[in-house]
Amino acid sequence: MVIHPPHRSLRLMLFTLRGSIVPVIWKRVLGMMLLSVAVVLLEHRLPRTGVELGAIPPTLMGLTLAIFLGFRNTIAYQRWWEARTMWGELLIVLRNLARQTLSLPADLAPQERERMVYRLIAFAHALRHHLRGTPSGDDVSRWLSPDDYAAIAGQPNPPNVLLGLIAQSYAQLHRDGRLDAILLASIDAQVTRASYVLGGCERIQNTPIPFAYILLLHRTVYVYCLLLPFCLIGSVGWVTPLMVGVLSYTFFGLDALGDQIENPFDRLPNDLPLDAMCRTIEIGLGELLGHRELPPPLLPVDGVLM
Amino acid sequence: MVIHPPHRSLRLMLFTLRGSIVPVIWKRVLGMMLLSVAVVLLEHRLPRTGVELGAIPPTLMGLTLAIFLGFRNTIAYQRWWEARTMWGELLIVLRNLARQTLSLPADLAPQERERMVYRLIAFAHALRHHLRGTPSGDDVSRWLSPDDYAAIAGQPNPPNVLLGLIAQSYAQLHRDGRLDAILLASIDAQVTRASYVLGGCERIQNTPIPFAYILLLHRTVYVYCLLLPFCLIGSVGWVTPLMVGVLSYTFFGLDALGDQIENPFDRLPNDLPLDAMCRTIEIGLGELLGHRELPPPLLPVDGVLM
Amino acid sequence: MVIHPPHRSLRLMLFTLRGSIVPVIWKRVLGMMLLSVAVVLLEHRLPRTGVELGAIPPTLMGLTLAIFLGFRNTIAYQRWWEARTMWGELLIVLRNLARQTLSLPADLAPQERERMVYRLIAFAHALRHHLRGTPSGDDVSRWLSPDDYAAIAGQPNPPNVLLGLIAQSYAQLHRDGRLDAILLASIDAQVTRASYVLGGCERIQNTPIPFAYILLLHRTVYVYCLLLPFCLIGSVGWVTPLMVGVLSYTFFGLDALGDQIENPFDRLPNDLPLDAMCRTIEIGLGELLGHRELPPPLLPVDGVLM
Amino acid sequence: MVIHPPHRSLRLMLFTLRGSIVPVIWKRVLGMMLLSVAVVLLEHRLPRTGVELGAIPPTLMGLTLAIFLGFRNTIAYQRWWEARTMWGELLIVLRNLARQTLSLPADLAPQERERMVYRLIAFAHALRHHLRGTPSGDDVSRWLSPDDYAAIAGQPNPPNVLLGLIAQSYAQLHRDGRLDAILLASIDAQVTRASYVLGGCERIQNTPIPFAYILLLHRTVYVYCLLLPFCLIGSVGWVTPLMVGVLSYTFFGLDALGDQIENPFDRLPNDLPLDAMCRTIEIGLGELLGHRELPPPLLPVDGVLM
Amino acid sequence: MVIHPPHRSLRLMLFTLRGSIVPVIWKRVLGMMLLSVAVVLLEHRLPRTGVELGAIPPTLMGLTLAIFLGFRNTIAYQRWWEARTMWGELLIVLRNLARQTLSLPADLAPQERERMVYRLIAFAHALRHHLRGTPSGDDVSRWLSPDDYAAIAGQPNPPNVLLGLIAQSYAQLHRDGRLDAILLASIDAQVTRASYVLGGCERIQNTPIPFAYILLLHRTVYVYCLLLPFCLIGSVGWVTPLMVGVLSYTFFGLDALGDQIENPFDRLPNDLPLDAMCRTIEIGLGELLGHRELPPPLLPVDGVLM
Repeated sequence: MVIHPPHRSLRLMLFTLRGSIVPVIWKRVLGMMLLSVAVVLLEHRLPRTGVELGAIPPTLMGLTLAIFLGFRNTIAYQRWWEARTMWGELLIVLRNLARQTLSLPADLAPQERERMVYRLIAFAHALRHHLRGTPSGDDVSRWLSPDDYAAIAGQPNPPNVLLGLIAQSYAQLHRDGRLDAILLASIDAQVTRASYVLGGCERIQNTPIPFAYILLLHRTVYVYCLLLPFCLIGSVGWVTPLMVGVLSYTFFGLDALGDQIENPFDRLPNDLPLDAMCRTIEIGLGELLGHRELPPPLLPVDGVLM
Repeated sequence: MVIHPPHRSLRLMLFTLRGSIVPVIWKRVLGMMLLSVAVVLLEHRLPRTGVELGAIPPTLMGLTLAIFLGFRNTIAYQRWWEARTMWGELLIVLRNLARQTLSLPADLAPQERERMVYRLIAFAHALRHHLRGTPSGDDVSRWLSPDDYAAIAGQPNPPNVLLGLIAQSYAQLHRDGRLDAILLASIDAQVTRASYVLGGCERIQNTPIPFAYILLLHRTVYVYCLLLPFCLIGSVGWVTPLMVGVLSYTFFGLDALGDQIENPFDRLPNDLPLDAMCRTIEIGLGELLGHRELPPPLLPVDGVLM
Repeated sequence: MVIHPPHRSLRLMLFTLRGSIVPVIWKRVLGMMLLSVAVVLLEHRLPRTGVELGAIPPTLMGLTLAIFLGFRNTIAYQRWWEARTMWGELLIVLRNLARQTLSLPADLAPQERERMVYRLIAFAHALRHHLRGTPSGDDVSRWLSPDDYAAIAGQPNPPNVLLGLIAQSYAQLHRDGRLDAILLASIDAQVTRASYVLGGCERIQNTPIPFAYILLLHRTVYVYCLLLPFCLIGSVGWVTPLMVGVLSYTFFGLDALGDQIENPFDRLPNDLPLDAMCRTIEIGLGELLGHRELPPPLLPVDGVLM
Repeated sequence: MVIHPPHRSLRLMLFTLRGSIVPVIWKRVLGMMLLSVAVVLLEHRLPRTGVELGAIPPTLMGLTLAIFLGFRNTIAYQRWWEARTMWGELLIVLRNLARQTLSLPADLAPQERERMVYRLIAFAHALRHHLRGTPSGDDVSRWLSPDDYAAIAGQPNPPNVLLGLIAQSYAQLHRDGRLDAILLASIDAQVTRASYVLGGCERIQNTPIPFAYILLLHRTVYVYCLLLPFCLIGSVGWVTPLMVGVLSYTFFGLDALGDQIENPFDRLPNDLPLDAMCRTIEIGLGELLGHRELPPPLLPVDGVLM
Repeated sequence: MVIHPPHRSLRLMLFTLRGSIVPVIWKRVLGMMLLSVAVVLLEHRLPRTGVELGAIPPTLMGLTLAIFLGFRNTIAYQRWWEARTMWGELLIVLRNLARQTLSLPADLAPQERERMVYRLIAFAHALRHHLRGTPSGDDVSRWLSPDDYAAIAGQPNPPNVLLGLIAQSYAQLHRDGRLDAILLASIDAQVTRASYVLGGCERIQNTPIPFAYILLLHRTVYVYCLLLPFCLIGSVGWVTPLMVGVLSYTFFGLDALGDQIENPFDRLPNDLPLDAMCRTIEIGLGELLGHRELPPPLLPVDGVLM
């Protein structure tokens, strides 16, 4: 996630590259501008060769593009925000489970409670690595007992198995008579919410926007930008390359932004900062455990929080 | 579901046919281009016959089309995504029920627990075949006891009957004193969620977008594309067939995509991969049963996951 | 509800009247075309009388219409879909209540269970007739005991009173010691959902889109179509009547479709098939009762399912 | 709420003032038309004074207006519909609470049950007057015992205090051993829903759309309409006043409608009919009490239901 | 939050600066107007220097801007409204918890109940200061016992820790035998809702709209406004500076409004009035405690409620 700068000077807003989509699309934009220069020169040397198309084609195509880009960015943003909301709910649910672990069961040793809370932290890390397809290293293992870790290592879906272990440990407390059935049901409701987060994140991760939409949009944007020089030269003449640059910057930019936002669990600059969120979970649960030495929040590197 | 290619080269994005809507609409687009060629030739041979209409008609019609196509694709996508969300919830609910089956009832033999979990897998397969109207073959029967299978075979709505059996088996555990009433209520809440998934999928399957919308949209797109050559020839001349090709590609494409997305349980390339999701359910529940030999995930065939 | 034809031939999509909005609006469209012919003739006989207005007025008005028609059809569709979702939930809830009636209470005679399930079917029919304002005939009475029917007949809101009877019969089972309080709470949650369906359907039925919106939209569409001939004649000449026909078809069509969809409980072709849904409920609950002779699903008449 | 006329004749739809926004905006529209007449006369007397601006300014501004009016009417309608949905839920919740009051507690005198149901009716009236800021007269007091009424009279938020009394009376039944804790929890869930309705209505009432949006929109609409005569005169000449009238009618109309819909608890014609809804609640709860003499539903006065 | 004036006179709506976005953007608008004057003078002195670009560039760019500004303001408003809804839910939840605290536990001294209700008020203040990053002063401490305050002071997330204390005090009542497990579960459900409010507000606070969208929008708006004088001068001549002023006012205004609304917890005029909402909570809970001397609601200062 790109961190918004604290002060938004005019210069920053107009010229910064950090957090901008420019690094992704500058080649395409430059290509279109060079094409425009060629068209202008051709028109200048050989006037009346008929390279002018007039404003009607881009006006008509612009309509389709408007539909498309609006539709596309809306659903991409909704995916991104739904993913963010689910990670927000994960934080909430894990805090609730920690709170319930600390207050509801009777006769439980503090170390045991701590162990159960640590397992919740491990769940967040396991989910993060599962979604990103990265090896978990010791992010997961250092919060788990060796037995627990052995049970989930190498499984196709570690957070799913870990959630099973978490649920069973609360059920065991009930069977041991240390947790009332009603309170177990309360806890179980939170575990169920965690399973919804897990399943919901997997849904977003595994189900991209139908590929045919993406293809149709990419192609329309390209054709539109390729047509622009021929359509603008008749009315704006030498300014054509500049205008083509501005217009293709916005269209390619919106298209590329949709691509980045659409898969919110990747590690591109505009994706979700799962590392930082896992750290927030560590802090929030440590706070509830009464720890006074808490790890610091993650800071952005080069303006980007991972 | 068309799998997005891992690397999106420019060439791929502009020219691939796989996952594209081109195979569905190329005839219509070609027809429009041939019509344009005829119009151009006619205009060339017999100038001033008055086949030119100018840009005003498509500009005015484009407005209606913009409303329509935006509206149509939005609701088609929402249906598709709601269907996907419900199958995602099915995975979650079945994992929860499996987890609860394994941890909550007391004094239950492992084989019996396994049998109950297998019945959940059968529910997913039965729902898939029910939605697609395909014969279930042994997809359902191999996860069920002969008695259970006999009870649902030939019924109008097998997953509905099967869910009734599932609910009754948990109620029986309660009557046998092996499941607390509160915990039965927790399980019942998940069974209720499964019934919402079943009913919700049937709702999408049985209630298409009102047909009059589809008709009105198809007709407007056709009339619009038929008008295009007459309206463009005055301003772009010989380039008319190319422009008509590009514009009719996008409009027919958006229209056809809406048709495919609208009924997400069909077996067209952009529909939901129910086969693969059922396999995911098999894996996720096998994992919770502690099985170490799990079936592999389904792989896409020709880039399409069914 | 108009049933989508199984095969969508080009000819069908372009020329069928069944399910189309054409029968509703053809008079208005024809009127506009006749007006256009008159304008064309006038212009031909008396050129330079100044009936031409140019393309600017419809371009500017089109904007408002675009806002309006998009907004209007979106909220009309949302009402239609919300109504459909609530009837889908009714099916789900009644299936759940039937399932719970069959499995949860102890020591209940099969006939008594059947009587309770039949009362659920009666609720669906009572709701249907209440929403449509039609006399219920024997649709309701044949599923009820004479006492029950006497209690609801002639009441202002029969489904509300019937739901009260249903809730009391479960409460009575609890008082008789045949139903655990927790399981009663589970059942009560489903009865509460049914009350939400009842209240939600009444809300849609009793609260149309604010009338001033409808009026403003109708008027704008009419003025727009009346202006069209004067604005198009300058650029398309003799083709004006055709163009006016096409444009007024789409605008009047979208407007009339919104009218039909907006009140989903009426008996127009594009409204919800409540008769068929009540039959589906009869089948689904009969299935759970283990009946082997089930009534057949309702079939569309002339392509329309009521 | 303006009641839709049963038959929508063409004449009614085009010329009725009842329920229309015309009475609110006719002065503004007339002013714009008079300005147009002045511009036309000026242009006729002193041609070439340069009052013509051409079509470009309104085309460009129309875009912003389109964004604005679409955005504004969508959120205004959502507020209106959310408010309507909450009052619909209030009806549902009060019917549920009445049903639960009549069936769940044991050993309760019928008069006492009736008193508790009457208190629910008083809550609806108290909420209505609280939202509208009107004195409650005897609408509230006649449904309450003198003690209850004394407790809420003069409080800043009477429905909040009344809901507290309602909740306490059910808790008292539990403490007296006449209501199982689980059933109290079921009732408490409905009381909680009522508190959500109360809080949600207050939220809509107290939080208007940010004022800067309203200001910016009003100003843009005014400037747009002021520019229209100068921009249209070049192309439509003497028809300018008519065109300006039509366009300013739609734009001022949409703007004014948004203002009315935005605050759904006011007493303007297009606001919610809270009086009638309270009466519906009286009827629905009386029906459940078994009363045979029910008050009649409120009827619209001059086509408007309050 | 800017309070809407009770009477909206025409003069007020057109010329007031209070609550308007004008103070934020007047420099930018003025700059664009000065540029326009320069362009007009240049064109007048040196005609045919080719500074005219014609209307095509802004028409094409306007499309992208329309997409962008509509998309941007919609999601900014949704964030603002979601934040408002969560604070509305906070009020509801705290009233419910107060009601439950006063009615459900048995054998609790009134002072103790009052102390528990005061802690709820402290939670609202702690959340407010946490979201705004302001020091809490005595807003929080005066509602808490010294022990409670010591436990949360200096923690990274005081409302999170305070909610833990609140949950534990109810659990303690259960362990002391003064609160039934089922009723504790009811209370716990409300505490869970409060944790959702806390987590949801943190989500909105910590996750701005992706920065690349904001950048792309700012830049497009600037380029669009910079182009305007060159594109308008050909058609409107000396009126160019006025037109540029009007258009840049609306575009810069919409852009700046989105910036303000997007972060609803800041202290800008159009942000949420958290101070006033905390006061409302104090009043609502005091009312339930039976206090007759309640603090007055906060009043707007200069038309703005903080």
